[in-house]
Amino acid sequence: MNIPTQPYPQAVQRRYREPVQVAGWNPVLESLLDHRSVRAYLPDPLVPGTVETLVAAASSAPTSSNIQAWSVVAVTDPERRAALAEIAGGQSHIRQAPLVLVWIADLARAERVAGQAEIALEGLDYTETFLLGVIDAALAAQNALVAAESLGLGTVYIGALRNDPAAVAALLGLPPRSFAVFGLVVGHPDPAVGTDIKPRLPQQAVLHRETYSSQTQDDAIARHDAATRTFRAEQGLPDQSWSELIITRLRDRAALKGRHVLRSVLEGLGIRLG
Amino acid sequence: MNIPTQPYPQAVQRRYREPVQVAGWNPVLESLLDHRSVRAYLPDPLVPGTVETLVAAASSAPTSSNIQAWSVVAVTDPERRAALAEIAGGQSHIRQAPLVLVWIADLARAERVAGQAEIALEGLDYTETFLLGVIDAALAAQNALVAAESLGLGTVYIGALRNDPAAVAALLGLPPRSFAVFGLVVGHPDPAVGTDIKPRLPQQAVLHRETYSSQTQDDAIARHDAATRTFRAEQGLPDQSWSELIITRLRDRAALKGRHVLRSVLEGLGIRLG
Repeated sequence: MNIPTQPYPQAVQRRYREPVQVAGWNPVLESLLDHRSVRAYLPDPLVPGTVETLVAAASSAPTSSNIQAWSVVAVTDPERRAALAEIAGGQSHIRQAPLVLVWIADLARAERVAGQAEIALEGLDYTETFLLGVIDAALAAQNALVAAESLGLGTVYIGALRNDPAAVAALLGLPPRSFAVFGLVVGHPDPAVGTDIKPRLPQQAVLHRETYSSQTQDDAIARHDAATRTFRAEQGLPDQSWSELIITRLRDRAALKGRHVLRSVLEGLGIRLG
Repeated sequence: MNIPTQPYPQAVQRRYREPVQVAGWNPVLESLLDHRSVRAYLPDPLVPGTVETLVAAASSAPTSSNIQAWSVVAVTDPERRAALAEIAGGQSHIRQAPLVLVWIADLARAERVAGQAEIALEGLDYTETFLLGVIDAALAAQNALVAAESLGLGTVYIGALRNDPAAVAALLGLPPRSFAVFGLVVGHPDPAVGTDIKPRLPQQAVLHRETYSSQTQDDAIARHDAATRTFRAEQGLPDQSWSELIITRLRDRAALKGRHVLRSVLEGLGIRLG
């Protein structure tokens, strides 16, 4: 699928705001590089079969040892979407868009399968197994996001469901040993509201050769601080560098918006981090 | 990008071994649905710029609050790849293929940035923040995998790096507060070794409408048990249903292959699950 299209450095330049030499170009790379989060939607419904298409992409993602420790709850009911929006701190796009996919790290299915053979799964009670479920859910979700964008749909992840995972579990009737990792809003982008490609850390900050290098990051972070300021000015947002964002978001417990209790919330959902 | 190509139900049928009605088709969906893990590679090197292309895709994945709490270490050195293969229980494809990308949940960068402003980030010490790093790394990695496959390359995730994350950290010189979530082998598939699409749980098992439903999973799991048996017979593998796999993999601590100690290993890497 090495179909040359428009000059590829443009998409890469737009992502990093600096040049990077890449090796090839095709419609898949074009779609991946063009990602932007959409927070304004039309109320139009999705074509029938859309959820099934996104889930087929999700099912095609790798999964650790084929355990498939994930599920997804497709929420379209307006009242339930409104409740999710409330949990997420009032994000109005959750009410606007016709669909929210809630991605579940699901160890409940394994427990059910083993229970029918009257076997208790000791392996469920470990941090490793919980991580496996979170990773499986994330890989599946990202495939669904890529699929949605390829169909011209807009998306945005809702990590803020972790503000209150117990409320999400109650709302969606999740069984013990399952955990809503995040939501994914899917809908038709409102064409009246522009979205732009958000610049990311230069490759020198995230890509290490053979071994990790802290020092070479510093220059790249400085460039990203400048690129972030420029982007925010273009968007009419208050001035903030990337470094300032990091400090604001992680400075103290209060910045975690209630998520500092996640560990004990997980225990309440039957998830043990042994 | 709604380009109709070959009859799309075939790719979906191949994935589930049962029909699912989908909404559209395009080259991106075709690439996503065609995923298979590759465990036999040619020794041929990658075209220059390949790593940069995969990382450009990774950088384009969503990241929670733009924190970008991930890094990737590109390992090409044969001795270092051999050491990774050893950690992963001797998986020979890690030695064969020219590249292993090791995906890092990276809270070290945030600590470094804040440290230069003489600020301590209290928010780093929570389970939520660790999960954020793991999720960021997984989303970035999955975009890189999709990009690699679109270029005709083969891939396979190496979750077995979690057999000994401290050894991986030592080998790659990872700083405190960073954690190798998994590896991703990338290379040219050996055309002499066929790979087939692995069947996945039917949508009735993983897709829930409005609320989670345990009961409707049972029939779908029974169908998947049968499809898994058929697939394994086709591959000349010993007979095993999916339910049997789940029980084998999660029955007890020993089945976790040393990963039952992950929680304390994380603490040793400076990662606190507060």
